Amino acid sequence: MSHHPLDVILHPSSIAVVGVSRTQQGPGTGFLSSLLAQGFRGKIYPVNPKYTEVEGLKCYASLREIPGTVDYVISRVPAREVPKMLEDAASKSVKAVHLFTARFSETGRLEATQLEQEILKLARKLGIRIIGPNCMGVYYPAHGLSFADRFPKESGSIALASQSGNLAFDIVTTGAMRGLRFSKVISYGNAIDLNESDYLDYFAQDPQTKVILMYIEGVKDGRRFFDTLRRTTAIKPVIILKGGEGQAGARAISSHTASLASLTEVWNAAISQTAAIAAESLEEFIDLAVSFYFLSSPAGKRVGVVGGAGGASVLAADECESAGLDVIPLPQEFREQLRDQGFPEWDWLSNPVDFSIISDRKRLSMGYIFEMMTKDHHFDLFIIMLRVFRRTQQPDFTLDKLFAMLGLKFDIMHTKPVLAVVPEPSLGIENCDSEEWKLTCELRSRLIANGIPFYPTIGRAALAARKMIDSCQRKSASDAF
Amino acid sequence: MSHHPLDVILHPSSIAVVGVSRTQQGPGTGFLSSLLAQGFRGKIYPVNPKYTEVEGLKCYASLREIPGTVDYVISRVPAREVPKMLEDAASKSVKAVHLFTARFSETGRLEATQLEQEILKLARKLGIRIIGPNCMGVYYPAHGLSFADRFPKESGSIALASQSGNLAFDIVTTGAMRGLRFSKVISYGNAIDLNESDYLDYFAQDPQTKVILMYIEGVKDGRRFFDTLRRTTAIKPVIILKGGEGQAGARAISSHTASLASLTEVWNAAISQTAAIAAESLEEFIDLAVSFYFLSSPAGKRVGVVGGAGGASVLAADECESAGLDVIPLPQEFREQLRDQGFPEWDWLSNPVDFSIISDRKRLSMGYIFEMMTKDHHFDLFIIMLRVFRRTQQPDFTLDKLFAMLGLKFDIMHTKPVLAVVPEPSLGIENCDSEEWKLTCELRSRLIANGIPFYPTIGRAALAARKMIDSCQRKSASDAF
Repeated sequence: MSHHPLDVILHPSSIAVVGVSRTQQGPGTGFLSSLLAQGFRGKIYPVNPKYTEVEGLKCYASLREIPGTVDYVISRVPAREVPKMLEDAASKSVKAVHLFTARFSETGRLEATQLEQEILKLARKLGIRIIGPNCMGVYYPAHGLSFADRFPKESGSIALASQSGNLAFDIVTTGAMRGLRFSKVISYGNAIDLNESDYLDYFAQDPQTKVILMYIEGVKDGRRFFDTLRRTTAIKPVIILKGGEGQAGARAISSHTASLASLTEVWNAAISQTAAIAAESLEEFIDLAVSFYFLSSPAGKRVGVVGGAGGASVLAADECESAGLDVIPLPQEFREQLRDQGFPEWDWLSNPVDFSIISDRKRLSMGYIFEMMTKDHHFDLFIIMLRVFRRTQQPDFTLDKLFAMLGLKFDIMHTKPVLAVVPEPSLGIENCDSEEWKLTCELRSRLIANGIPFYPTIGRAALAARKMIDSCQRKSASDAF
Repeated sequence: MSHHPLDVILHPSSIAVVGVSRTQQGPGTGFLSSLLAQGFRGKIYPVNPKYTEVEGLKCYASLREIPGTVDYVISRVPAREVPKMLEDAASKSVKAVHLFTARFSETGRLEATQLEQEILKLARKLGIRIIGPNCMGVYYPAHGLSFADRFPKESGSIALASQSGNLAFDIVTTGAMRGLRFSKVISYGNAIDLNESDYLDYFAQDPQTKVILMYIEGVKDGRRFFDTLRRTTAIKPVIILKGGEGQAGARAISSHTASLASLTEVWNAAISQTAAIAAESLEEFIDLAVSFYFLSSPAGKRVGVVGGAGGASVLAADECESAGLDVIPLPQEFREQLRDQGFPEWDWLSNPVDFSIISDRKRLSMGYIFEMMTKDHHFDLFIIMLRVFRRTQQPDFTLDKLFAMLGLKFDIMHTKPVLAVVPEPSLGIENCDSEEWKLTCELRSRLIANGIPFYPTIGRAALAARKMIDSCQRKSASDAF
């Protein structure tokens, strides 16, 4: 543990869920069940005057009735009841309150905005720190904190601070399917007290966190944020997705978290003075996250591409080049090796390797040529296109049979960064449980288990790789000062 | 039927598969089974001196042994045997030969290139037209022609000419999952005789074809092609994906179909003088295909966006705007309608509609507000974000229950173009047959059945819509001349 003020807040030994719900229909009704599902080992106190028991736990009419002290409160009470709840919390020595409670400044209404300011003043007076309001709070699997039942129980080394709770949910669940496991996730909403700079600063110091993700709609203190960002990016990759970049987006963030849109040009200029990595879309945000999570940065841009055939190889070349990678021709020594091994395609094969050309696919398998490439010093990174498609005509087809057929051994692939492309077919109801689909899912799990990130398209893989290389170069440049 | 020379070629009453295979392992081994699976109603003659019977059909030692005439030949014989096979074909009055046979000019070798030229000369002398070589040939479901067992049997109104057989396969199968059904598909490879201009010209005249797709690596006769393209785009949308745009891609097309890369600038300039729609990637190619297949072009750029919540709505606004759509604020009359109906969020809700804001989701459901928007004259098109995610906690959850919950009725959605966004989660083996996944697949099938195209991301939907609008404006501009 560090001495950062957030460290105490994020390690409560007791949590009260005030305004707890007995149903699980509707937003924010699952806080209690999430803590139970995630296995929070401290004390949990449901609070709601309507119930005496919730999920097998004694339910208290108010915070004041709880015996002893409480460290952390999750608030689901209506906005107007927050001041009283804070007074109650202070009487229990509560250190921090997560206000799921919303309908404050984001409504654009004067009274609601005033109430939000009163709450901040009161919390400061009472010595209580606020996460939120209008947010989902904390997911910290190692400490059993969570705001969704289905989040992974295992910890990992990537942290997320997200101004949107819905996106935090999406990023954790989508990211988990792509192999991410999180150290800490904080959905922080309107950020009236603790804000993006506090969370970033904490993640910078957190030994469990190696990569940092941020979804930001607006920053509270630009100078502090960019100072913190500059310091943090010198030691850890920080990937940022900015919401509200256009006019309509600016309107949307104002009604979502009452954030003021910064001018896109000003924001971009400030970001570019740090080694932060800016994502252009949610998809790219996840792509970059898995890239930095699984891979060390490639030493250069020279990519070897295998696994395509025919037009797919042609398009792979185009996409890699337009993403800024260098699709070098097969080196002369490489060709000569192929010739000396008696492969008649030695002078015809190219990079990307077009497998439709190869006649003896048993000897010159995808795995064989891929291994040859990984040993060639001309290449800095590899993209391998994999699909189960069209290979399952034999009965009892398994992933191991597919790998054997392709000569692939993933356990020896780790000398240089390898990115896999696994397409996502838009299956309909008639083929939603096909054998190919199951093998594709199994392939994804196998790749993750071997530390190889996958991407749904070659273009997305290539772009993520290029942005990794760029950020590494920017970091070296700024280190040189 | 038209009087186009291809019309006769594509309506054979007898087909011989020369060099037929008895296994289905390896490329091109499935031609016979594809014809049988697709229900070709004419005569089918397997030809291979090694067998007397294949798939229950009598197998002939050579073309000459077949009784009577043969209209169409699919050739799997080795390259050096093609001249003899053509002589045999001529003796049977064959009109056209599809040369799956490869290893010609694409090898980059002198003898192979010379042989290809000899074959062309011989075919011209014998009056036989050539599709290919180095290609998969024809898929024409209404006539029972196919080169893959699994292609849909139903016909549709989109045609494809693809220089790559692998891509033709991908485009048909991926496109089918997105709801496309094809009139005719021709994989045409090296195009030594019939080429891209012939196929385009044929599709232009074909009454069954309403939208045309082309994957092109290089054109044989630029002037003829652009003349044909200009004429065709005046009457039907033509969506083009160009392979070999960069240096590495140019190398790749030379070893794939021996095509010469045109200079990207020259190509783009020529395309921009037609109303053709250029796709930047295979994914965009399919997105544009489904857009033109299912939708009429929006009358303008003013988009209404529903179905998102929180940060997803913010990012939807950003993505639509950066794609060039106009994300207008909710019109004042619209807000007043909401106010008059007693919804407290009337002055707070915006476009994109952020559903996390709405309190009474029963009355002000997604379907309700969406219907209100479709009746508002300020909007030209709609994007609706749909996901099954997080809504399946009740047992026996069905798609109908989801639609009822959201107040959605898809059958009344057809007044203006509607694009749906259905995310594609990268499921692993542990959740590949989850209830949510099945409902997502069912949702896709339901959307297609209701004539609503879907896209995996909001960005891809927005970009496809913008390109539709642009092409419509370019068409109007060129019509004005």
